[in-house]
Amino acid sequence: MFRKEIKVLDCTIRDGGLMNNWHFSDEYVMAVYNACVESGIDYMEIGYKSSEKAYSRDEVGCWKFCDDKDLKRIVGDNNTDLKLSAMADIGRIEPDDIPLAADSVLHMIRVAAYVHQIDKAILLAEHCMDKGYEVTINLMAVSNIMERDLEEALADVAKSKIPIFYLVDSFGSMYCEQIERLVKKYQEYLPKKTIGVHMHNNMQLAFSNTVTGIIHNCNMLDTTFLGIGRGAGNCPLEILLTFLKNPKYRVRPILKVIQESMIDMQKEIEWGYHIPYLITGTMNQHPRSAMKWMNSKEKNDLVAFFNRMNEKMDL
Amino acid sequence: MFRKEIKVLDCTIRDGGLMNNWHFSDEYVMAVYNACVESGIDYMEIGYKSSEKAYSRDEVGCWKFCDDKDLKRIVGDNNTDLKLSAMADIGRIEPDDIPLAADSVLHMIRVAAYVHQIDKAILLAEHCMDKGYEVTINLMAVSNIMERDLEEALADVAKSKIPIFYLVDSFGSMYCEQIERLVKKYQEYLPKKTIGVHMHNNMQLAFSNTVTGIIHNCNMLDTTFLGIGRGAGNCPLEILLTFLKNPKYRVRPILKVIQESMIDMQKEIEWGYHIPYLITGTMNQHPRSAMKWMNSKEKNDLVAFFNRMNEKMDL
Repeated sequence: MFRKEIKVLDCTIRDGGLMNNWHFSDEYVMAVYNACVESGIDYMEIGYKSSEKAYSRDEVGCWKFCDDKDLKRIVGDNNTDLKLSAMADIGRIEPDDIPLAADSVLHMIRVAAYVHQIDKAILLAEHCMDKGYEVTINLMAVSNIMERDLEEALADVAKSKIPIFYLVDSFGSMYCEQIERLVKKYQEYLPKKTIGVHMHNNMQLAFSNTVTGIIHNCNMLDTTFLGIGRGAGNCPLEILLTFLKNPKYRVRPILKVIQESMIDMQKEIEWGYHIPYLITGTMNQHPRSAMKWMNSKEKNDLVAFFNRMNEKMDL
Repeated sequence: MFRKEIKVLDCTIRDGGLMNNWHFSDEYVMAVYNACVESGIDYMEIGYKSSEKAYSRDEVGCWKFCDDKDLKRIVGDNNTDLKLSAMADIGRIEPDDIPLAADSVLHMIRVAAYVHQIDKAILLAEHCMDKGYEVTINLMAVSNIMERDLEEALADVAKSKIPIFYLVDSFGSMYCEQIERLVKKYQEYLPKKTIGVHMHNNMQLAFSNTVTGIIHNCNMLDTTFLGIGRGAGNCPLEILLTFLKNPKYRVRPILKVIQESMIDMQKEIEWGYHIPYLITGTMNQHPRSAMKWMNSKEKNDLVAFFNRMNEKMDL
């Protein structure tokens, strides 16, 4: 379907990096960047902006920081229509760590926050706007927020200058009817703002929940190449492009990166549909216990993981 | 969600067999059978009823024929609540090949037909009813049928005794809005009949389209263990059970078979989401060309397959 307001954001490096601590080769990051440019994607989220105090460079790659020297090694001055984005986690960055937009190749900062951090998120996002960036706020883990708290957060966002607000299914635990209900609530509170969607694939619903968002007028759509991302991963960019059938997007460059880099990568980094991720998703739990299980020797003992999660729920 | 009219059908052996010519070990078929019994699944489709003239036993395993001697080797007299089903393809079986239900452990025959075969399908299905079976008709490839022909077929089915009629997304090419529209049309023409859904996963929509069916009152739901099936596969049984949250179903026995048999099986039989299946799905084409590509040396040359399919579409 074609709706000119729709913007597609690729977060392959940022969200995929949660699976390998952002240790991607420069060649791969460049291949993703070039494919996004050639495919007509609107935004590429290339990593996080983080404080040097929050993480050690011995543990995480440079895309956890997104210094301009690293960005420019890949994108030069980025004389393209592709806008570059970085995510900022509340508590992991100081406002002073963010340069002026005029001094950076980044166009957009997306602020990720839990509901109790929403006022801090508004403050940081407005600070970034003042520095010249486009901004969004991505409210995480909404499936675990009490309705009263959600409404208070939405009312705060409504009073802010933030133009784009995201519905995020952090645990991959929501069905189409829950997506529809929340989208309508977000729109009711934020009638003049753009709503974005960021979905996870624990129950094989990342793409279909994104379609539900599209049907209900969400216009910022998060995706990744071959669905790479934390745990079960994200909405696959290549599927979304075939759905949108918008002449400004082209799928071939995406397929080329998948065939050249990602089929082998998926053998090493096991994102995608796996039973432990289904179990945390259906139980509305953070995927971290499933990720730990997938990296353990017990990995394939699915019944044991199911039993353990059930016991945890019984507490 | 709980709705007592809902019945779940597992077609792991029947549809999965399309990937290995029904060469499953007896141990595996027995494990699937036992898990279906323990999980409270309503129907297990264990294979096809076919004429000996239609296929060679040198090429296909015994589940392409479902002789009672083979069935009884696995299920004995099947003194359980699980009903056994077999599929019959129009043109691949003679009515005389089907024994009386009283002489078989099969409870149900599902007749699969293309739209031009619908009258033959009604004749065969009513013949099976007369022999004592429950029956369904599964109309294949509905995404390629002109509306006028579909309506004529539905009017024919409406006049028949057939109690259950299936919406089948043979090519995995339909989105939720197309599912909703067709379900409503089927119900308009067949107000007193049960509508079933059989979905494929080319665009990662098999489960979500099944949910769309549930929302619109479809009550026969086809699934397979870990989504095994032709090409991209089917709606995964384990995901559907976590969604239904119906106390009569249990997911642990399914997980046990997945962990003991299917994680390794998936390395040999590559069903599931793969780009060639996405491409045929999004182009509303039969998956056979993608299956052929997946078995060729060019398998991972995704751009070449995309180009070839596009050229074919240009003809």
